[in-house]
Amino acid sequence: MKKLGKQTVQFDNPPQIISSASVVGNKESQGPLADYFDQVISDGYNNQQTWEKAQMKMTEDVVNNALDKVNLTKDDIDCLLAGDLLNQIVASNFAARKFPIPFLGLFGACSTMIEAMAIGSMMIDGGAANQVVTFTSSHYQATERQYRTPNEYGDKYPPYKQWTVTGSGAMILSNQVGGVAVTMATLGKVVDLGVKDPKDMGSAMAPAAADTILNHLEDSDRSPSDYDLIVTGDLGQVGKEITIDLLAEQGCDVSKNFDDCGVMIYSSNQNCGAGGSGCGCSAVVASSYLLPQLMYGNFNRILLLGTGALLNPVTSLQGESIPCIAHAVVLERTGHLTEGIGRPSIQDNLSTKIEDLTKSEG
Amino acid sequence: MKKLGKQTVQFDNPPQIISSASVVGNKESQGPLADYFDQVISDGYNNQQTWEKAQMKMTEDVVNNALDKVNLTKDDIDCLLAGDLLNQIVASNFAARKFPIPFLGLFGACSTMIEAMAIGSMMIDGGAANQVVTFTSSHYQATERQYRTPNEYGDKYPPYKQWTVTGSGAMILSNQVGGVAVTMATLGKVVDLGVKDPKDMGSAMAPAAADTILNHLEDSDRSPSDYDLIVTGDLGQVGKEITIDLLAEQGCDVSKNFDDCGVMIYSSNQNCGAGGSGCGCSAVVASSYLLPQLMYGNFNRILLLGTGALLNPVTSLQGESIPCIAHAVVLERTGHLTEGIGRPSIQDNLSTKIEDLTKSEG
Repeated sequence: MKKLGKQTVQFDNPPQIISSASVVGNKESQGPLADYFDQVISDGYNNQQTWEKAQMKMTEDVVNNALDKVNLTKDDIDCLLAGDLLNQIVASNFAARKFPIPFLGLFGACSTMIEAMAIGSMMIDGGAANQVVTFTSSHYQATERQYRTPNEYGDKYPPYKQWTVTGSGAMILSNQVGGVAVTMATLGKVVDLGVKDPKDMGSAMAPAAADTILNHLEDSDRSPSDYDLIVTGDLGQVGKEITIDLLAEQGCDVSKNFDDCGVMIYSSNQNCGAGGSGCGCSAVVASSYLLPQLMYGNFNRILLLGTGALLNPVTSLQGESIPCIAHAVVLERTGHLTEGIGRPSIQDNLSTKIEDLTKSEG
Repeated sequence: MKKLGKQTVQFDNPPQIISSASVVGNKESQGPLADYFDQVISDGYNNQQTWEKAQMKMTEDVVNNALDKVNLTKDDIDCLLAGDLLNQIVASNFAARKFPIPFLGLFGACSTMIEAMAIGSMMIDGGAANQVVTFTSSHYQATERQYRTPNEYGDKYPPYKQWTVTGSGAMILSNQVGGVAVTMATLGKVVDLGVKDPKDMGSAMAPAAADTILNHLEDSDRSPSDYDLIVTGDLGQVGKEITIDLLAEQGCDVSKNFDDCGVMIYSSNQNCGAGGSGCGCSAVVASSYLLPQLMYGNFNRILLLGTGALLNPVTSLQGESIPCIAHAVVLERTGHLTEGIGRPSIQDNLSTKIEDLTKSEG
C-alpha cells in the first residue's frame, strides 16, 4: 500500500469483502431496506435479560452468520476488529469473548465500522493478516439510557434528533477473491466547530464528513463524479443537507450522488426524527444493501464514510462542544460474485436485473 | 511484514521509536521511578476545572512534549493512535482535537498503549504511514468515580485492589532511524476465566497475559531466556504472581526475568494496594523507564505486554465476569541514540554507565 496525500492510503492488492451479514430490530425491519437484512430480532431484549446482553448476543450472531455464509470457521480468521457505543465497547468485547481470535478493540463512535475496515484492510494488504472480521452494533434503548435519559422518562424529541439504530453488521475482509474490493481508505481527523447540543448530532458531525470528503478527493485527485455514490454513515437529514452545503461552499458539488445511511434506513412516516444514527446504522446499511448493489453492478464505485461524535455525557455536562470524526473507504465492484454478500432473494432479483441490463446493452 | 503462527506479526523493516514522553501525578512522582518522568502535574486538577479536563490537558501536553524533544511538528505526523479508560475515550478524543492529524481511536482498556504501538507499527511497516504518535492516559480520581465509586464515599480498599496511575505517555514511531525498534507484535485474544470482582483486576487479567506470552513464544519459536525482561502492563503484585504460576504450570519458567509496570511504579510504603493500574501505567513506565534502558543497552530485547480488563460498571452490576486481553510488542536495542528518549539527567547517567561497562569489558 502507499500513502496518497495527507490522509489517504491506496491498497496495492485491495482486500476483498467476501461475506457480510446484518441483524436489525423491529423498527429497522419496517423501513425501506427491510428486504435486505439477514435477520430480525424478536424485540429489544432479543431473548436476553437486559438490553446490553441483547446487543452482545446480536453481535455474536452476526459474526457467526457472516462466517456461515461462506463456510468459514473461527480458525480461518486472523483478527477481529470491532467497537460500539456502549461504555468501554462492552458489546464488542463480550461478543469477542466467544471467539478465540486476536481482537483489536476500536472506538470511533459511529465511524467505528469504517475505521475497522480501514485498519483491517491495512493489515491484509501489508501481510499482517489473511482474513479479518469487522463488526459493530448499536441498540436503541441501551444507547438512549447511556447517552441521554432512559426512554421511560419521556424526554422531548426535537425533530433534528436522530433515532439510534438497533442493529449489528459484520464483514469478512480477505486476501482471497471476493465480491467487493476496498481500494482506498481515508483516515479522518477530529473536527469540532463548536456544536454543544448532544441531540443535534447531524449538525455536529457534518463538518467532519465534509472535511474527510474534501481531503479524500484532493489526496486521490478525483472529483465527486468519479463515484456512483458518496454515502455517509449517520448524518441524518439535517447533517446530510449541511454537508452538501458545506461542500458546495468549497466548490464541490455532491448534490447528485450523495446520500446518508441514516436517511436511507427509515421512512419519513416512522417518526424517527432526522433519521437513523448509531454504530449499527452504517454497518447494517453497508453490509446488507450497499455491498450487493456493488457486487451486482448497480454501482461500480462508492465512497463510504462513517461519521462519529466523540463525546460522552460527562463532557456535555461539563460544557464541552462535540469533537467529531469521519473515516472513509472506497468500495469497488470486482466482477466476482460470492454467496456471502446479499440475501438469496436479493441475489436473485439483482442478478436477474443485471442479466436484463446486459441483454438490453447487447 | 509477515504473520508468524496464529497471533504474531514480524516486521520486515521494524518501526523505530524516535521519541517518548511522560507526565505523571504526585503519587507517581514519589515512587521508585520518580527520576525518569519528564513532567509532574501540580495536583489532580492540573490547573483545569475538572478531573476529566485535567486528563485531557495532560494528554495534549505529553504529545507536544514528545514532538518537541525531536523538533517535529504536527505536519510531520501521519496518524495519531490512542485511547483511554474514560467513557468513549474522551481524554484521547479531546486531546486529538488539538492536532489536525488523522486519528484512530482505540479501546483495549489498559492494553491500549500496546495495541496502539502494534497497529502503528503495522501501518509504518506496510507503507500506510511514515510517522505516527501513540498515546494514552489515566487519572486516579476520574477513573475511580467512573468505574467504582467516588473516593469521597470512602469505599473499602482491599489489599488486592490496585491504584489507578495518574499519568500519560506518548511515543513517536517512525520509519527513520531511532533509539528502539519494534520488531514483532502479538495480538491477544479475549480470555475470561470467570473472575467477577471488579476490584480484583490482577486475578482477572493474569490468564490473558499468560495466554499471550505462551502464544508469542510459540509463534516466534523463542523461550523466555531470549528476553532480558518480560514485562506486563498493570497486573500488580497479585496478578504478577498468578501469571508466573500459570506459566510455570505450562512448563514456561519466567521467574527470573518477569516484572510488571504496576509493581514497578509504586513502592510498598505508598499504600497503593497491589500496585498501579490504568492505561497510563504501562504507558509512562515504558515511555520513561524501559525505553532508555533499551536505548542505552541495559536491555537488548524485551517483551512488553499491555493487559486490559474489558468490563464496564454495568456489566459487573448485571452479574457478568470480566473478559480480559493482553497485547504484546517486542522492543529491541538499535544501537542508535536519540535525544527523544529519556530525560537529560537519565541520559547522562545511563550513557556514563554504558561507557564504564564498555571499558571494563575492554
